[in-house]
Amino acid sequence: MNPEPDTHEPIRAIDLIRKKRDGGELTRGEIEAFVRGATSGEIHDYQVSAWLMAALLRGLSRAETAALTDAMVHSGRVLDLSEFAAAKVDKHSTGGVGDKTSLIVAPAAAAGGLVVPMISGRGLGHTGGTLDKLEAIPGFQTQLSLDRFREVLRGCGCAIIGATSEIAPADKKLYALRDVTCTVDSPFLICASIMSKKAAEGIDGLVLDVKTGSGAFMKTEEDAVFLADLMVETGERMGKKTVALITGMDQPLGRRVGNALEVEEAVEVLRGEGPDDLRELCKELTAWMFQAGGLTRSWEEAKQRYEGVIRSGAALDKFREMVARQGGAAAAVDRPELLPHARCAAEVTSLRSGSVCAMQCEAVGTACAILGGGHEQREDAVDPATGILLHKKVGDRVAAGESLCTMFYNEETRAARASKLLQESYTIGEDVPAARKLVRRVISKS
Amino acid sequence: MNPEPDTHEPIRAIDLIRKKRDGGELTRGEIEAFVRGATSGEIHDYQVSAWLMAALLRGLSRAETAALTDAMVHSGRVLDLSEFAAAKVDKHSTGGVGDKTSLIVAPAAAAGGLVVPMISGRGLGHTGGTLDKLEAIPGFQTQLSLDRFREVLRGCGCAIIGATSEIAPADKKLYALRDVTCTVDSPFLICASIMSKKAAEGIDGLVLDVKTGSGAFMKTEEDAVFLADLMVETGERMGKKTVALITGMDQPLGRRVGNALEVEEAVEVLRGEGPDDLRELCKELTAWMFQAGGLTRSWEEAKQRYEGVIRSGAALDKFREMVARQGGAAAAVDRPELLPHARCAAEVTSLRSGSVCAMQCEAVGTACAILGGGHEQREDAVDPATGILLHKKVGDRVAAGESLCTMFYNEETRAARASKLLQESYTIGEDVPAARKLVRRVISKS
Repeated sequence: MNPEPDTHEPIRAIDLIRKKRDGGELTRGEIEAFVRGATSGEIHDYQVSAWLMAALLRGLSRAETAALTDAMVHSGRVLDLSEFAAAKVDKHSTGGVGDKTSLIVAPAAAAGGLVVPMISGRGLGHTGGTLDKLEAIPGFQTQLSLDRFREVLRGCGCAIIGATSEIAPADKKLYALRDVTCTVDSPFLICASIMSKKAAEGIDGLVLDVKTGSGAFMKTEEDAVFLADLMVETGERMGKKTVALITGMDQPLGRRVGNALEVEEAVEVLRGEGPDDLRELCKELTAWMFQAGGLTRSWEEAKQRYEGVIRSGAALDKFREMVARQGGAAAAVDRPELLPHARCAAEVTSLRSGSVCAMQCEAVGTACAILGGGHEQREDAVDPATGILLHKKVGDRVAAGESLCTMFYNEETRAARASKLLQESYTIGEDVPAARKLVRRVISKS
Repeated sequence: MNPEPDTHEPIRAIDLIRKKRDGGELTRGEIEAFVRGATSGEIHDYQVSAWLMAALLRGLSRAETAALTDAMVHSGRVLDLSEFAAAKVDKHSTGGVGDKTSLIVAPAAAAGGLVVPMISGRGLGHTGGTLDKLEAIPGFQTQLSLDRFREVLRGCGCAIIGATSEIAPADKKLYALRDVTCTVDSPFLICASIMSKKAAEGIDGLVLDVKTGSGAFMKTEEDAVFLADLMVETGERMGKKTVALITGMDQPLGRRVGNALEVEEAVEVLRGEGPDDLRELCKELTAWMFQAGGLTRSWEEAKQRYEGVIRSGAALDKFREMVARQGGAAAAVDRPELLPHARCAAEVTSLRSGSVCAMQCEAVGTACAILGGGHEQREDAVDPATGILLHKKVGDRVAAGESLCTMFYNEETRAARASKLLQESYTIGEDVPAARKLVRRVISKS
């Protein structure tokens, strides 16, 4: 496919809209014409949004989804990382609360022998974003050119940057429209958006962390599996070894939510400490990255390799090196007091005694955003110091008056709103559900 | 409802889109906010079109359709015709081929005692438009202000003009977007568009002629009945006595298709002559207008009143008067040679002997547009002189080499394209289907 074709059939936007409206299947050529026209402006925004709504309500076939993804990849630059002998493998999560796994798995996988070219995003709404977390480290630069990105990869085997305008510009254009026309929540469009950006990274393999539960975008496991399956098929169609883990997001991952707080917790895990759920998930994700990259021959070996780079400190070294190479204060990795801290702290206490039976995970994420740690609106700046330390999670006992969590904040008015949300997000009772494994299912084509 | 409210809830376009996308029912207030925002530009075009596509695919409830219609009516001016003691009744057709009934029923109904404030449209695609037909009369003005419109009504009881920017501007805005986003073909949106413009005329009653068949927008009778029922309910909800006739459009109405040709045929019918199907339909439509206006107490009386105004010449006098008051050459009514005539004529002959079993009615309309009588594109000017005189219609015998119809045109190249279409539009064989009544059903709420 040619991103700038010299000649092409005239685009009749109305025909593309009618076909999808009536439930038809667009050809690869029609999908290409749509993406080209939408990106160039030849197809008007009001026509693009009508098509997107039709696509959301009618759905796309697997072939249409693959063609859409492909057309979006080739709307921009595709990184050529063939200079690296090692396998290039990335990890992507569909977004959750307290999910700082990227900060751990990228250096761990690089320490284990992979190249990890990670192009990541910011938080939106109740979810956190990897870029926001990394920027809590003083000086850390996420807006690198692709050439600088490549230099960091050469230096330490992993790098985490924000999307540049060179990568899948069609996705940028379509996403901006989807965001304001209520056409985000389509598994087909989500798949094409994620997979186009990942494919543009020039990777060989990809591990997807598809979240499900009260803190995820996919509230039901069924929806998560549908999306995961679609992304795995789309990845494989593009020649990438793709594995998806369906993981629970019914409560925040780890005990810290908020940008600087999450950096601290990520470092704990890189040191071999930290909360069990987070440690376990990072091990699974990194091991699947090793497997996807063909670096290990068995699941046992893959997990051992992860444990090895944690035990030896190689993963932490990689993280420290990546921070330094991206302009960040590497000293803050070992001295958390160098990270930003909020001026105020307040406890959210339980109104009754009992056990934590459930958490409204999305509400915890929203509370963190309210405290200043998230983008309530896309353009809002985040306050990296703010956030929440969870003392109680599902299954824990709590006494009336005991602290459920501590809020860290700089503005009193925000704390009041967040406190109410946090208290309501805990269900205290006696019927603690049986604990479920964090990794619910693994989906791969081979 | 207030067209320019001083204060209103902030419009969250995204919420209105989401609700419809998910199949929810918008409240009257939400529909009003949508129409207000779409018209003012506060809701962006790309959001409006996403909502329209969701509405097309999800449908609207009866209450939503009524609220949408109402909000569109009140986006502009509503004519106050209370100065007229007589009932104000209009007739509207959903569009067909050779349908010149408006030119007959408006003066006939006025001659019978009604006031007929008809705001009409132009042809598009294969359908003709009343305004184009009237403008074939030298000097006839269709773009009158609402004040001039009222003066003509005072003078002769009927007037036919084009939509002004004061009437339902929301419809103008929405229709322009629907036209380019493939969201025209929704019965709910069609209903709101038609009924908002009709309600703005300040009428008491309305007779709808909903076409079905190969020359109609509603190809199946089921679709036509659905739309008719929706429009009748919407009209009644707005306090207008509304009746819909489902009429066949499997072949052109009458024998002439093309603007000046149709004026000639309309005058024939006003004289009590002309083709049977056209005469019959005009009688039914006008009689229903009398009934809707409460002017007659029985169907028999209503038909007799129509026959009376035709027989006495009162209907023809009204037409002549309306033409004069709208600036047209009234002399042309009695002397068709004063109407524009094409320079060339050519026969389309039958390739075989047999009976006309069917006509592809839409193709006849398209052929007329190609000859110059229609707007192939919205902005194209029409050539009023061009058109088609049908010698054969369904059920007629024809010999090989005999003329099926005569084309009138000014450009040779157009004739070649039209000729082929016309020949193909006739199915000649032996299996003539049983003749069906032109009026298939009458739909009214009482």
